[in-house]
Amino acid sequence: MASGLVAQQLVPLGVVSATSDHTSVVSINIFVALLCGCIVIGHLLEENRWMSESITALVIGVCTGFVILVTTKGKSSHIFVFSEDLFFIYLLPPIIFNAGFQVKKKQFFRNFMTIALFGAVGTLISFFIVSLGAIAFFRKMDIGSLDVGDFLAIGAIFSATDSVCTLQVLNQDETPLLYSLVFGESVVNDATSVVLFNAIQNFDLVHIGANDILKFVANFGYLFLCSTFLGAFGGLLSAYMIKKLYMGRHSTDREVALMILMAYLSYMLAELLNLSGILTVFFCGIVMSHYTWHNVTESSRVTTKHAFATLSFISETFLFLYVGMDALDIEKWKFVSDSPGKSIAVSSILLGLVLVGRAAFVFPLSFISNLTKKSPDERIVFKQQVTIWWAGLMRGAVSIALAYNQFARSGHTQLRGNAIMITSTISVVLFSTVVFGLITKPLVRFVLPHNAKHLSSISSEPSTPKSLHSPLLENDEGSEVEVQEVMPRASSLRMLLSKPTHTVHYYWRKFDNAFMRPVFGGRGFVPSFPGSPTDQSLPGQP
Amino acid sequence: MASGLVAQQLVPLGVVSATSDHTSVVSINIFVALLCGCIVIGHLLEENRWMSESITALVIGVCTGFVILVTTKGKSSHIFVFSEDLFFIYLLPPIIFNAGFQVKKKQFFRNFMTIALFGAVGTLISFFIVSLGAIAFFRKMDIGSLDVGDFLAIGAIFSATDSVCTLQVLNQDETPLLYSLVFGESVVNDATSVVLFNAIQNFDLVHIGANDILKFVANFGYLFLCSTFLGAFGGLLSAYMIKKLYMGRHSTDREVALMILMAYLSYMLAELLNLSGILTVFFCGIVMSHYTWHNVTESSRVTTKHAFATLSFISETFLFLYVGMDALDIEKWKFVSDSPGKSIAVSSILLGLVLVGRAAFVFPLSFISNLTKKSPDERIVFKQQVTIWWAGLMRGAVSIALAYNQFARSGHTQLRGNAIMITSTISVVLFSTVVFGLITKPLVRFVLPHNAKHLSSISSEPSTPKSLHSPLLENDEGSEVEVQEVMPRASSLRMLLSKPTHTVHYYWRKFDNAFMRPVFGGRGFVPSFPGSPTDQSLPGQP
Repeated sequence: MASGLVAQQLVPLGVVSATSDHTSVVSINIFVALLCGCIVIGHLLEENRWMSESITALVIGVCTGFVILVTTKGKSSHIFVFSEDLFFIYLLPPIIFNAGFQVKKKQFFRNFMTIALFGAVGTLISFFIVSLGAIAFFRKMDIGSLDVGDFLAIGAIFSATDSVCTLQVLNQDETPLLYSLVFGESVVNDATSVVLFNAIQNFDLVHIGANDILKFVANFGYLFLCSTFLGAFGGLLSAYMIKKLYMGRHSTDREVALMILMAYLSYMLAELLNLSGILTVFFCGIVMSHYTWHNVTESSRVTTKHAFATLSFISETFLFLYVGMDALDIEKWKFVSDSPGKSIAVSSILLGLVLVGRAAFVFPLSFISNLTKKSPDERIVFKQQVTIWWAGLMRGAVSIALAYNQFARSGHTQLRGNAIMITSTISVVLFSTVVFGLITKPLVRFVLPHNAKHLSSISSEPSTPKSLHSPLLENDEGSEVEVQEVMPRASSLRMLLSKPTHTVHYYWRKFDNAFMRPVFGGRGFVPSFPGSPTDQSLPGQP
Repeated sequence: MASGLVAQQLVPLGVVSATSDHTSVVSINIFVALLCGCIVIGHLLEENRWMSESITALVIGVCTGFVILVTTKGKSSHIFVFSEDLFFIYLLPPIIFNAGFQVKKKQFFRNFMTIALFGAVGTLISFFIVSLGAIAFFRKMDIGSLDVGDFLAIGAIFSATDSVCTLQVLNQDETPLLYSLVFGESVVNDATSVVLFNAIQNFDLVHIGANDILKFVANFGYLFLCSTFLGAFGGLLSAYMIKKLYMGRHSTDREVALMILMAYLSYMLAELLNLSGILTVFFCGIVMSHYTWHNVTESSRVTTKHAFATLSFISETFLFLYVGMDALDIEKWKFVSDSPGKSIAVSSILLGLVLVGRAAFVFPLSFISNLTKKSPDERIVFKQQVTIWWAGLMRGAVSIALAYNQFARSGHTQLRGNAIMITSTISVVLFSTVVFGLITKPLVRFVLPHNAKHLSSISSEPSTPKSLHSPLLENDEGSEVEVQEVMPRASSLRMLLSKPTHTVHYYWRKFDNAFMRPVFGGRGFVPSFPGSPTDQSLPGQP
């Protein structure tokens, strides 16, 4: 230690401890070691039907926080201070991008109207219920100074479904409809939230006229279209560049690097332009998997597929570990410790509001959505509605980041009300992630035992876990080759293309084939250059 | 802009600009866009025999810095402040790890004694010459207050070959001997530098006794062995875990994540223990490519191979761009502007000392190394010595980071001497990277036209660029299957194993096969579990 301190003064060569804070090196070491631990334990618990990776990480995080709390004798429980920048700039983009990259596009776009309805109107309904509920309950409770802005913020914080949590408990292969509805909703509601907050600032909420509502709808439309367009543009640009320049000729790594950087650039550009970065990077992922991914070399395809998934996996684990370790931070709990009953009451009320707020839009909107569907196969039956309601209840790191932003800025944690709101948010996040998360998996299996199978058969994915055997095919077939309901034995692409059931999809496909693919590449539309790396001789074990 | 500022105050949802500094979002956008530009331009210039990726990035960085300088009217030229933490904690580890992961192990270990000689003794010789030269020249020049510690630091800063630059100009496939000698040297001299600086603190340099020299040698041995052991341990642990737990059964991503995290953990642990992180992560990469890489699934192999290379590629490009943009920082040049002649003189003297200091050890040590070699084929001929001397002359980001650490800490940049030293370091780095870097590629081709071929034939690599056709095989064969000089037609593994030429390697191979591989896996030693993912059906273009 002493020599380390001296070294910090005088040794500049190659030693991080010389150039950076010694404690930050220690923190990184502990954190990376914990991440490794989470991965190993998560692997060992894989067979367990209750635990999920996220809960493992959360529990390990809380335990570590407790150990640190004890060893530092109650001084500190966290080794990193929760940083919203770290969350929004570095952890969230890879997670959402990968979700877009791996999403089953067919399923997603087929349910697009329902998803948009849930994400836009649903979030609004939930927001109003939670906000009004918070005003009704907390005004009477004497929990410090909270103004109307704070109550509206509470509504926004607790009405947004956490996309990261959703990814953790729902399986795209097992329950594709559920996954695309709940996850899609969580992506769309990011845009809603941005519009909502802008609206709160500009409008007088007490006197809402038709004009204001129109303005709100226009704002949402503008934000939604711009974000989507930016993401699609980023994806198409990468596809065009990689196809035109034929990057893979010289270096596989350059293709992969360009895809990563273009996706990230689209996210950051959206944030710069005050658009919804989540929506942008999600659509960038979709476009990249449809065009760019087919333009790169064979090894780049394997690499991107797994590298993006790995990045996303590390970010998710990191996030839950982080939230877990941050939960026990002693400073926030100081104010609460003198009135534990009040804190528990606040948390319970918030949980209740979340439950009611979500129920208030899932069931009515499902009913509306069902009215538009002709065939009974496409309708959302009651059991499915229950799982949609339940699976979207979790609140996660997004809520914590927003709570910090609203209640902890410029040293206001010292205020009693703010401290209570932050600890309550953490309690709700921990409880909902662990309890709702634990129950979701078994619930889905219990409520939708035959539906899961039924859904997977109508959703164009064969029910065998073929991902184990041919990981490369999965993305292709799952997303583009469709096994029709009308003729379940149809297997040739020609037949599928000649008789599609959905007319929108039919016209899109025609447009795609006639204009988009020749320019941007995509499956079967990449000309093989002379001397191009074929890369098809991937050998087995030698 | 105005709405953006308002948003920063009140909009917390999903918008980075709300949670972070608006300028930092702008900076990230510019930087990522520039990175994309570097990749595309680097691709277009690939055929050019003079330019390398690093020089492209450096030039783009300087140009951007100039543009920013002009647009901000001379106020600022950089969008990020150069941070040693960013460099040592995030950018350097992936570069060095990838170098270890992709290094041709056979070639590296065959020349290990020469590499260690260059890296340990050579760095010392260069250090003394540069330090003494700096004292001799700069004392007379009136360039502000520099004490003995500063002069010794100058010696250390300019005696270390930059491993990142070396990677950029030397090609492992074209000139394997040169690559392994110069790059290996740059890895080993990191350990030397750490020991050197500790020694400077503890010893009285004017009265060096035999005892002190012994102590120094012992210190170096301790540091070298500990760092190597830690790296090997990290690699073996990852191999053992992945083999025992059979990670790939559930998730490919978990394997990849564990490899990345374990490698990073070994680096950070080395830094924590005041060892040489570069040496550690380099050996961790070697061990991982020998054992762990063979224990993972087929897709993980493709993924890790390319993902590590991509990470390293992005880090390198980032680094050179960063150095280029930082070079024009106006603050540093303020003090120098009144005496430009002096700054040029200091830079020229430093460059001269670097040239002399390197010559002073490359030629004598090559002579000593040649004495120990029996066959003339293995000796380093004069032409090769010249290229070794030249190829290691570049000074890069490591030098800049060290110069900042020594001369810019706690606000001392305001001192005239310190400002001159920093600007001189930047000048030397820019000049040596661009000029020496530009000349190295043609020089190697000019000086070693037949040697390049000769070397590649004795170095066990076929001279065809087979990496283009079978990227997966490259790592295997290049590093482990040896085409013997004695019988050039030998192609079966059995023959190779039964008649090795090098006895150390023979015993290592026996030990490896008998004890290491059964425990840690490795090629041909991974049992196939029932139901394991075979992943061999990687399809071509559909």
